[in-house]
Amino acid sequence: MADTSQVKALIYDVFGTCVDWRSGVAREVAAVARAKGVELDPLAFAVAWRDNYQPSMETVRSGKRPWTILDVLHRETLVGLLPKYGFAGKLSEAEIDDLNRAWHRLDPWPDTVPGLTRLKRKYIIAPHSNGNFALLLDMAKRAGIPWDCILGSETVKNYKPVPQSYLEAVRLLGLEPGNVMMVAAHNRDLRAAQAQGLRTGFVPRTYEHGPGQKTDLAPDGDWDVIARDHEDMAAQMGT
Amino acid sequence: MADTSQVKALIYDVFGTCVDWRSGVAREVAAVARAKGVELDPLAFAVAWRDNYQPSMETVRSGKRPWTILDVLHRETLVGLLPKYGFAGKLSEAEIDDLNRAWHRLDPWPDTVPGLTRLKRKYIIAPHSNGNFALLLDMAKRAGIPWDCILGSETVKNYKPVPQSYLEAVRLLGLEPGNVMMVAAHNRDLRAAQAQGLRTGFVPRTYEHGPGQKTDLAPDGDWDVIARDHEDMAAQMGT
Repeated sequence: MADTSQVKALIYDVFGTCVDWRSGVAREVAAVARAKGVELDPLAFAVAWRDNYQPSMETVRSGKRPWTILDVLHRETLVGLLPKYGFAGKLSEAEIDDLNRAWHRLDPWPDTVPGLTRLKRKYIIAPHSNGNFALLLDMAKRAGIPWDCILGSETVKNYKPVPQSYLEAVRLLGLEPGNVMMVAAHNRDLRAAQAQGLRTGFVPRTYEHGPGQKTDLAPDGDWDVIARDHEDMAAQMGT
Repeated sequence: MADTSQVKALIYDVFGTCVDWRSGVAREVAAVARAKGVELDPLAFAVAWRDNYQPSMETVRSGKRPWTILDVLHRETLVGLLPKYGFAGKLSEAEIDDLNRAWHRLDPWPDTVPGLTRLKRKYIIAPHSNGNFALLLDMAKRAGIPWDCILGSETVKNYKPVPQSYLEAVRLLGLEPGNVMMVAAHNRDLRAAQAQGLRTGFVPRTYEHGPGQKTDLAPDGDWDVIARDHEDMAAQMGT
């Protein structure tokens, strides 16, 4: 394990790393489908929704459209998917808004709250997700994730992995990059953080995309800490 | 008491309302003075430092200078005060930086943490202070103030009482103004929040400026809740 004695804050990827978006979104899609008499595979719907996550943010990162929060991008993707899954004309605007907020109501993995509760005793802990402020806050309130503050895309007005996203988070914390560890289940996120001088912690989530997952099954970079889960991370970080 | 049934989040003024800046700053000034062999009245130093608080922010609010965080404004005021109090040439840049962070290390009033801990069970609670992000975060970590997130001037890039400061905080929370209560010991802050449609809660701090305080001794507006302290606020808000 690398020297992490200068780390004062741990900032976290959230979707996949801390919460199970696939099951959580599917659960809410299934409930709405049942209420509306629609038959579908809710897990496939969740994955299709998530499949447009990176493309939708890329329109902002590339400068093609001005700053737009994830709730808006999620809703646009949702509106595009509804007719393909048999929901054409079946949901009111308010019902679409509510289903869109399924992303505010995702459940943490079993190790997330116990691990982060331990880490919070010694470190600043904060989500640094591409989710917007209210999404991350609502999720934490519902699930009991004990963040010290909310970072993330809306606070820094950039989507990861844009370099400025990491540097602005570090600056807000009043720290130097070497004092901050990015924790993620995604190698790409860690690679971008490491390039800006942050420490890195990998926590695998090999079922994030379901049983056939092909990406991020193992660490593929020189990360400072590699942990089995958030409780193992807490132990390795001395808490 | 007004109808506060729609309130979902309480956002707080911090200096004076939640923490005792006068005693906290004086304690640190006294320690530095002792170490450097300087004789002074540390409470007078603290009040003089605070006296330039509004004027320094006004240079930003008025547009005379670009967005500048409170740590920078505080440090400029400090550098101006040091020679007047016998510190000329006695502090290194690092020592000035450290004394400037006295504002990150203020103690809460006795009712703050117990009251906010109760309120957090039912409401989102967040500081909405003119302090910068790291100042509010460091203070909360040290003092155990259980905020759900950090709002405040740096998050919204405006100093209260600029109207946009309140509206941007409400927007980040994903709420409407009527869902958010501004809590402060200062009538001016509440007046500005109320003008933007927020609910208002007054908590008096009649010794914030010391025994001769002349301002904000009593509520002078039609505030939704008037509480003796944060524990009384928790009781009145049903927690």
